Amino acid sequence: MPAEKFEVLGLGNAIVDVIARTEDDFLIKHGLAKGGMMLVDEAAADRLYESMGAATVISGGSAANTIVGLSSFGIRTSFVGKLHDDEAGRSFAHDIRQSGVHFETPFAKEGSSTARCLVLVTPDGERTMNTYLGACQNLGPDDINEEIVRNSSILYLEGYLWDPPAAKDAFKKAAAISHAAGNKVALTLSDSFCVDRYRDEFLELIRHKVVDIVFANQHELKALYQTADFDTAVAAFRNEGVLGAVTRSEQGCIVVTREETVAVPASPIEKLVDTTGAGDLFAAGFLAGLVRGCDMRDAGRLGGLAAAEIIQHYGARPNVNLADHAAENGLTIPA
Amino acid sequence: MPAEKFEVLGLGNAIVDVIARTEDDFLIKHGLAKGGMMLVDEAAADRLYESMGAATVISGGSAANTIVGLSSFGIRTSFVGKLHDDEAGRSFAHDIRQSGVHFETPFAKEGSSTARCLVLVTPDGERTMNTYLGACQNLGPDDINEEIVRNSSILYLEGYLWDPPAAKDAFKKAAAISHAAGNKVALTLSDSFCVDRYRDEFLELIRHKVVDIVFANQHELKALYQTADFDTAVAAFRNEGVLGAVTRSEQGCIVVTREETVAVPASPIEKLVDTTGAGDLFAAGFLAGLVRGCDMRDAGRLGGLAAAEIIQHYGARPNVNLADHAAENGLTIPA
Repeated sequence: MPAEKFEVLGLGNAIVDVIARTEDDFLIKHGLAKGGMMLVDEAAADRLYESMGAATVISGGSAANTIVGLSSFGIRTSFVGKLHDDEAGRSFAHDIRQSGVHFETPFAKEGSSTARCLVLVTPDGERTMNTYLGACQNLGPDDINEEIVRNSSILYLEGYLWDPPAAKDAFKKAAAISHAAGNKVALTLSDSFCVDRYRDEFLELIRHKVVDIVFANQHELKALYQTADFDTAVAAFRNEGVLGAVTRSEQGCIVVTREETVAVPASPIEKLVDTTGAGDLFAAGFLAGLVRGCDMRDAGRLGGLAAAEIIQHYGARPNVNLADHAAENGLTIPA
Repeated sequence: MPAEKFEVLGLGNAIVDVIARTEDDFLIKHGLAKGGMMLVDEAAADRLYESMGAATVISGGSAANTIVGLSSFGIRTSFVGKLHDDEAGRSFAHDIRQSGVHFETPFAKEGSSTARCLVLVTPDGERTMNTYLGACQNLGPDDINEEIVRNSSILYLEGYLWDPPAAKDAFKKAAAISHAAGNKVALTLSDSFCVDRYRDEFLELIRHKVVDIVFANQHELKALYQTADFDTAVAAFRNEGVLGAVTRSEQGCIVVTREETVAVPASPIEKLVDTTGAGDLFAAGFLAGLVRGCDMRDAGRLGGLAAAEIIQHYGARPNVNLADHAAENGLTIPA
């Protein structure tokens, strides 16, 4: 591994996004819950692909998108995720490395193909995701390089890691190493359906101080506390004693600690094209600010700016250099 | 083959585009001529890919882009092009079929992988293309289905077909069948470097009436007649007796016959992102108008509208339904 200290290390499912525009009728016909992420097996993914429209293929994966966003902000980053040695896997590895991210997780040479997410984007810009986890199911504790974890100021983990069988063991191992080295651990709750699947585990991670920083959108937060009332959820969340960042789409975000709540408005956009990656890129901007010592308000602004960029084009990887983009919008990332 | 008559049949190199943003420095460092299309072997393509940035993968190919554009205008289309049976080839086949295009060319089961074009887009929106022809080199006369050619009102051919060894034989066979059935044959000159490579052959196709309709941009037209003066080239072109459509970027297009010259202004755009496919989509709009009986001015407007759509996003396949887009802009495609 390189000698320099990393600022953020991401651990997540390494997925290639296959994106097609579609009408609402298609979602209804195929029984897909709009706005959600559904896990599918390879046969179901193949069937859905056959009936969906012409596609654009771009590397994705929630934590991977965040890490690439951080790199675009000029943050020193590393990523761990499992790929198969196939065309899609080689593209993903190429893309993340060429985005300036240190990536050394070995390819799986046998077993399932590289994970893919069939992303259906409706005319309102909402995305509906169908994920075949494939090679991600082979991620395990052996993929964690202890030295890199120790040398990364923040470890960023996605809640989706609870889906593949051994990834949660990699998650827990990395979190323990990170805390033992005096670093911080961040978690994104990923998706409200994911919260429904693993509510008790996520609450345990928060309450047992396995994680220090938690990202959620309003739906995920309400799902976590099983309430329809946002304020009730926020009050419960504040009481956990973590640093929490809660996104609310066009209403911006709130940053909460036990001591205070800071509300930051959303960045303006010209045209909503595809919401894929909004939460991932918010986390990128927020963590970029946090790791470089910005206050909560500026960290929230950086998150909002990155999210606004990503939802104005297809795909969840930035189309601009985010450090330059921030500077053009009056926000500088401290050196 | 289906019973219905096709309106346009396209024959071209079946290529997957691998698109990355880059700075001008990268082109200089790699000795790439900005704005051009260079043929590269697989090793050179692999080397360039390794050093280029994170990429977006979208089906491409010049004539294929045109045919998909025509289908988006509601025109009944078919395409012939050679793919390998690999991930990229299966994506291309999926995309063109799901775009409503009839496509039945069998995969090559052995030999080179599916063709790919490494498209480098600079901040000015200009694209520089590096094409590995791969499986396209296996396209030959046997891939021409005579019944489909006879049943297609217009046969659309790309000049790039002169690059692979046997594709020109497929081109000539298809053109002969088309004319024998009383149909029209269209040719795009493709690229000024392509014109330099095959000037004599292209002039022969025009002068021997192998083609009836010719698409060119101003650079290609000047290359064809080896003149630096556009008006000189246009005068020579008018004299050929074909229907010619010449595009001039933001200056719009001119449509020429021996009898008249019609100038049509370009459609306005908000932001130039990526010029890839501008000529291909102009041809789509123009042919859509032509095959449905529009006058030259409306055909030129439809071409300009489709070109304007394609250059405002990455990739050379339309992001909107072009028939609806035309209607919203006051242009209707006759039934």
